[in-house]
Amino acid sequence: MSQSTFGKKFTVTTWGESHGKALGAVVDGVPAGLFLTEADIQVYLDRRKPGQSRYTTSRSEGDQVEILSGVFEGRTTGTPISLIVYNKDQRSQDYGNIAQTYRPGHADFGFDSKYGFRDYRGGGRSSGRETIGRVAAGAIAAKILKELGITLQTYTSSIGPVSCQGFHPEVISENSFYMPDMVAAKKAVQYLEQCMRKNDSAGGVIECRINGVPAGIGDPVFGKLDAAFAQALMSIGAVKAVEVGDGVKVSSMKGSTDNDGFHMEDGKITKTTNHAGGILGGISDGGQILLRAHVKPTPSISQAQQTVTRTGENISIEIKGRHDPVIVPRAVVVVESMAAITLVDAMFSNMSARMDYVKDFYL
Amino acid sequence: MSQSTFGKKFTVTTWGESHGKALGAVVDGVPAGLFLTEADIQVYLDRRKPGQSRYTTSRSEGDQVEILSGVFEGRTTGTPISLIVYNKDQRSQDYGNIAQTYRPGHADFGFDSKYGFRDYRGGGRSSGRETIGRVAAGAIAAKILKELGITLQTYTSSIGPVSCQGFHPEVISENSFYMPDMVAAKKAVQYLEQCMRKNDSAGGVIECRINGVPAGIGDPVFGKLDAAFAQALMSIGAVKAVEVGDGVKVSSMKGSTDNDGFHMEDGKITKTTNHAGGILGGISDGGQILLRAHVKPTPSISQAQQTVTRTGENISIEIKGRHDPVIVPRAVVVVESMAAITLVDAMFSNMSARMDYVKDFYL
Amino acid sequence: MSQSTFGKKFTVTTWGESHGKALGAVVDGVPAGLFLTEADIQVYLDRRKPGQSRYTTSRSEGDQVEILSGVFEGRTTGTPISLIVYNKDQRSQDYGNIAQTYRPGHADFGFDSKYGFRDYRGGGRSSGRETIGRVAAGAIAAKILKELGITLQTYTSSIGPVSCQGFHPEVISENSFYMPDMVAAKKAVQYLEQCMRKNDSAGGVIECRINGVPAGIGDPVFGKLDAAFAQALMSIGAVKAVEVGDGVKVSSMKGSTDNDGFHMEDGKITKTTNHAGGILGGISDGGQILLRAHVKPTPSISQAQQTVTRTGENISIEIKGRHDPVIVPRAVVVVESMAAITLVDAMFSNMSARMDYVKDFYL
Amino acid sequence: MSQSTFGKKFTVTTWGESHGKALGAVVDGVPAGLFLTEADIQVYLDRRKPGQSRYTTSRSEGDQVEILSGVFEGRTTGTPISLIVYNKDQRSQDYGNIAQTYRPGHADFGFDSKYGFRDYRGGGRSSGRETIGRVAAGAIAAKILKELGITLQTYTSSIGPVSCQGFHPEVISENSFYMPDMVAAKKAVQYLEQCMRKNDSAGGVIECRINGVPAGIGDPVFGKLDAAFAQALMSIGAVKAVEVGDGVKVSSMKGSTDNDGFHMEDGKITKTTNHAGGILGGISDGGQILLRAHVKPTPSISQAQQTVTRTGENISIEIKGRHDPVIVPRAVVVVESMAAITLVDAMFSNMSARMDYVKDFYL
Repeated sequence: MSQSTFGKKFTVTTWGESHGKALGAVVDGVPAGLFLTEADIQVYLDRRKPGQSRYTTSRSEGDQVEILSGVFEGRTTGTPISLIVYNKDQRSQDYGNIAQTYRPGHADFGFDSKYGFRDYRGGGRSSGRETIGRVAAGAIAAKILKELGITLQTYTSSIGPVSCQGFHPEVISENSFYMPDMVAAKKAVQYLEQCMRKNDSAGGVIECRINGVPAGIGDPVFGKLDAAFAQALMSIGAVKAVEVGDGVKVSSMKGSTDNDGFHMEDGKITKTTNHAGGILGGISDGGQILLRAHVKPTPSISQAQQTVTRTGENISIEIKGRHDPVIVPRAVVVVESMAAITLVDAMFSNMSARMDYVKDFYL
Repeated sequence: MSQSTFGKKFTVTTWGESHGKALGAVVDGVPAGLFLTEADIQVYLDRRKPGQSRYTTSRSEGDQVEILSGVFEGRTTGTPISLIVYNKDQRSQDYGNIAQTYRPGHADFGFDSKYGFRDYRGGGRSSGRETIGRVAAGAIAAKILKELGITLQTYTSSIGPVSCQGFHPEVISENSFYMPDMVAAKKAVQYLEQCMRKNDSAGGVIECRINGVPAGIGDPVFGKLDAAFAQALMSIGAVKAVEVGDGVKVSSMKGSTDNDGFHMEDGKITKTTNHAGGILGGISDGGQILLRAHVKPTPSISQAQQTVTRTGENISIEIKGRHDPVIVPRAVVVVESMAAITLVDAMFSNMSARMDYVKDFYL
Repeated sequence: MSQSTFGKKFTVTTWGESHGKALGAVVDGVPAGLFLTEADIQVYLDRRKPGQSRYTTSRSEGDQVEILSGVFEGRTTGTPISLIVYNKDQRSQDYGNIAQTYRPGHADFGFDSKYGFRDYRGGGRSSGRETIGRVAAGAIAAKILKELGITLQTYTSSIGPVSCQGFHPEVISENSFYMPDMVAAKKAVQYLEQCMRKNDSAGGVIECRINGVPAGIGDPVFGKLDAAFAQALMSIGAVKAVEVGDGVKVSSMKGSTDNDGFHMEDGKITKTTNHAGGILGGISDGGQILLRAHVKPTPSISQAQQTVTRTGENISIEIKGRHDPVIVPRAVVVVESMAAITLVDAMFSNMSARMDYVKDFYL
Repeated sequence: MSQSTFGKKFTVTTWGESHGKALGAVVDGVPAGLFLTEADIQVYLDRRKPGQSRYTTSRSEGDQVEILSGVFEGRTTGTPISLIVYNKDQRSQDYGNIAQTYRPGHADFGFDSKYGFRDYRGGGRSSGRETIGRVAAGAIAAKILKELGITLQTYTSSIGPVSCQGFHPEVISENSFYMPDMVAAKKAVQYLEQCMRKNDSAGGVIECRINGVPAGIGDPVFGKLDAAFAQALMSIGAVKAVEVGDGVKVSSMKGSTDNDGFHMEDGKITKTTNHAGGILGGISDGGQILLRAHVKPTPSISQAQQTVTRTGENISIEIKGRHDPVIVPRAVVVVESMAAITLVDAMFSNMSARMDYVKDFYL
């Protein structure tokens, strides 16, 4: 199995290569009766498109999604929703270089070791274009969550060494990095310019905040909600670390500081702080869920790098062609999509957790 | 489903509560013909026992494992291995306090929100004792890996703000923190003494290095090897962040630094550096795998903390009883166990990745 | 994986060998708050015990079940329920014969081919004793169903060529074959006497009727309710055919006869007949569910049979020892257990089938 | 989850409705390096097309398959293979009748009960056209098996009361029923003519024989090979019973007759008979695997039938339009496809069954 399916109750199967005919996803477990159009999904896909800025590739990716099944008269039927995006830009190129050489920081060597063979065109299955299927599915998940009063806010919190100092959600969509801090966004421009001049690339951090999640979601042992988020976010190509709540900081904190107290607020049990990021013991605690993904710098750089060919010859390689000097802004919606998919899956699993729930449902 | 099963091909199902009759695991998918005794497993369980130091609980946990099935004449039969550890120390206590109150930093509130009801004795299912099943299963996984020439080295790399500066594997077992740096271990003693005087607790960082993993393990999309490790490690109670290789550092690095070059070494394709921590694009690259888990401070502290009762009354609570001021040293073998289980599962999934493998096997 | 886990939302993992220390099951996904005692489970286990009649083995199987986890203060907690039955009767025997020879009609050869090695004592994992775990889990499933107004009635409908002509549920428990027809039960006695005189054995048919299942359970494609029942029943050792409703008869029927009409009855959409056995297109239709399992004759017979040894020597074998000349009566509760487990699993999966269900639940 | 995915290691996800834009399948777990073209798949799809005879619908179903991913330079890459067949014949029809009425023998009522809503055009997701995805995937599975020397032979063994008396494989493709007996095929013509004159329909039996399966395939408990076949075959729309080997006959047989002896043949352990149909205790025994599926008569008949509307009105319905009076011939390749998929999945799962297999693979 190449494990292209995610989830247990709300499942997403993605398929497709960067330069194949098309890419897509089959989303199974969508409840019947949700109003859903291609426009709902297109909004999400457009967020992962290259922006107008010069920091993302100029490849014209129309990436129009088509719904092939599972929707009838504007509503989901409960059966699998097949989504497809045709690859329009498959112009023939000379991939000989990449075909025979292992690009540093890429999955080329791993694929060859595993399969003995790979579709080397544009990274094939390990291309960032694989995330098209995830984002299309994520749009559906996010729409389900919205119906339940749950919203996601995802943004770039740092680009290279440039971190946001303030949090102004209203400016997220006003800069091409999706940063909630315009000052940081401007500094990021300067940093990236510098990277580009040196034929280098940058990474960054993406944060996702989820509001409105009821307490009680997630399972106690291997199905912990944070474990599911960790798998989901780490499964995104360039992510090398995942944090929940205070994340890496907790290891140097004291219990008295890290523990979130509880108190009554408006007749409701509420936490006084949120170091835990909304998840305790793997189960949501009613607080805002906070996730953080660390994205490595784009591995494709046009500097000379040391590598080997498939036949074991030491060579130097310079990766030419269209490559984002930073993929973080385009990955923001991918993180949001994976978070939404994970949460819907966990929420659906939760519905038979109590005998009284089951009885209410069936009797 | 409460999702107590981990893995697809090599599956581990854990069960049991802190103060129930027993805890255990069913390990399915163990290949037939592995020599296995209770002693193999006991070695691992003993590593999660409280140490001789005063930084771990004094509860006498004999924790003797029994193999109930799946082993015949000293060898595994290919059928499920049922492992059991009886709880000996179930003395009746007054849990009224915990039963009616939500301890800060614990899963109590989540459990009640989800199930409407919980076994509150010693944390019940969310107790650290649940990891007994994981460690027993991990011992089997580690033995399988050893037969394949793969070894795991797991240790504490920091306690609170005290980080190891050097890496001396030979001293790991010579200090009660399992640190590879005796200087750091001594500083950690001082730090913990200070925490205990203030009725406070500490967290820390656990690192796991895996040597001998062949290139090609892991699946390209949702089954990425690092995604599986992330889920596995984040599913350990107190872990709030998981890193692979350079981890959180990658977000501020440049591509030219983060990329690992390849070169030929002894006729073998080898990486020149290992920022990636042995995993590229979700597939092992033949390098040492490096994982890092950030463990939060023990939430049970005897300082007064603000919380509420089940009935919604604001109160102050002081958690009395035996509690480790730091759980990191005992969690070291849990991290190793989950890493071993994850890797075995991924390696077994890999065996049908190529048509020539399948043909070699069946023809 | 040796695939010892059944189900997706309500999962049952069985473990244990005939002559190992113990056998058991871990049942995960039991909703919290169900009242459950060992007595609830023992009633089911007692039904699979050898009866007082001379047609079942005289081995004294106490088979007392113990609940090791997942129940607190008499109610399920939502966490995995571990059930154990110790093997008391493990007296040392001379299995040399069986160890070195492949018994006709048994799994011995398959096990050796697969694992190269087997626990040959009493059939090991392929023993009928493996069903202890299934039946213990089935008792829990049946209790859940009872709370939802769903009841199962399972009985022997034929022994060898002797079929029940009438259906008198009240006599099912009044004969040692669990037949709903006393005349047939008496004929079955005669038939079995004849088999035993000739050192031969008999098979039979088990039927299971399930009342009270609401329409709409089951998934449309691979998760069809009848497909799930088929897998469940065919996974019982000696079952070689599974029928739903009219079963094998449908292939020679005409559409006009096989189709069940619908009509209104007491303001409810009801079927006029039930050839379909309560399942149409894989989804329950509100009618009584009718399942039928064909059980082969006990393969262990003391007649001389032709076989080979592990080393490839042609020999003649006579299986000595305690063997039921017919296992059908003891398999009745196994069929019922698997049917109950399957139905609970399908019903829990159904709870998120519609967006309005999900909204009702979460809003 | 609507459970549109089958298999664990070799997984098939089907999607699509009868009158939607397209239908298809995503096949994951295909080993890398298999030569595969659209023509390989088309051959299978053509077998499920309506024949030239008047017993299958005249709808012109071009049903050309396209491979969208997972194949590069004529070989599989190990990544998911997405297959699509566009629906060409979606002419607008008046489905008002079917939309508002529950057709006897169909899934309409079940779908409405479950989802509250359905795509009623041509049966939507419960249409026989859903099997396009299965057959496309089955072609890949069969090709893998062929590389391993395993072949499937599937045919109609009866139509209504007309059963084949002889077995002449060479004539299977020479009659439009795929019967291995020309005399029976001629009688079947007469029987069907009679059915059609009476506006009635017929069922039948499909048999599948699999040659070349090595001993040792299948798992001992819930993953029994026959249990997997049972689920697979029963998941085909109109199948109401599944038999393995002697099937329903075993229940009236004696042990001495049903048991297959073993003997040495050409230095190989071989069975003297094959009542078991090649599977003992859920594991293949090296003999020919024999499966049998009982298919009910086509439920769509133009006779008047009693039913109700969605609003609960008793009415009489006559199903007009193009409907096969018998679907058995077209279902032959569906049975073969499901059998092939099931077997590949079981064989891939088997590769880590022994420690020496694992060591041979990795060392």
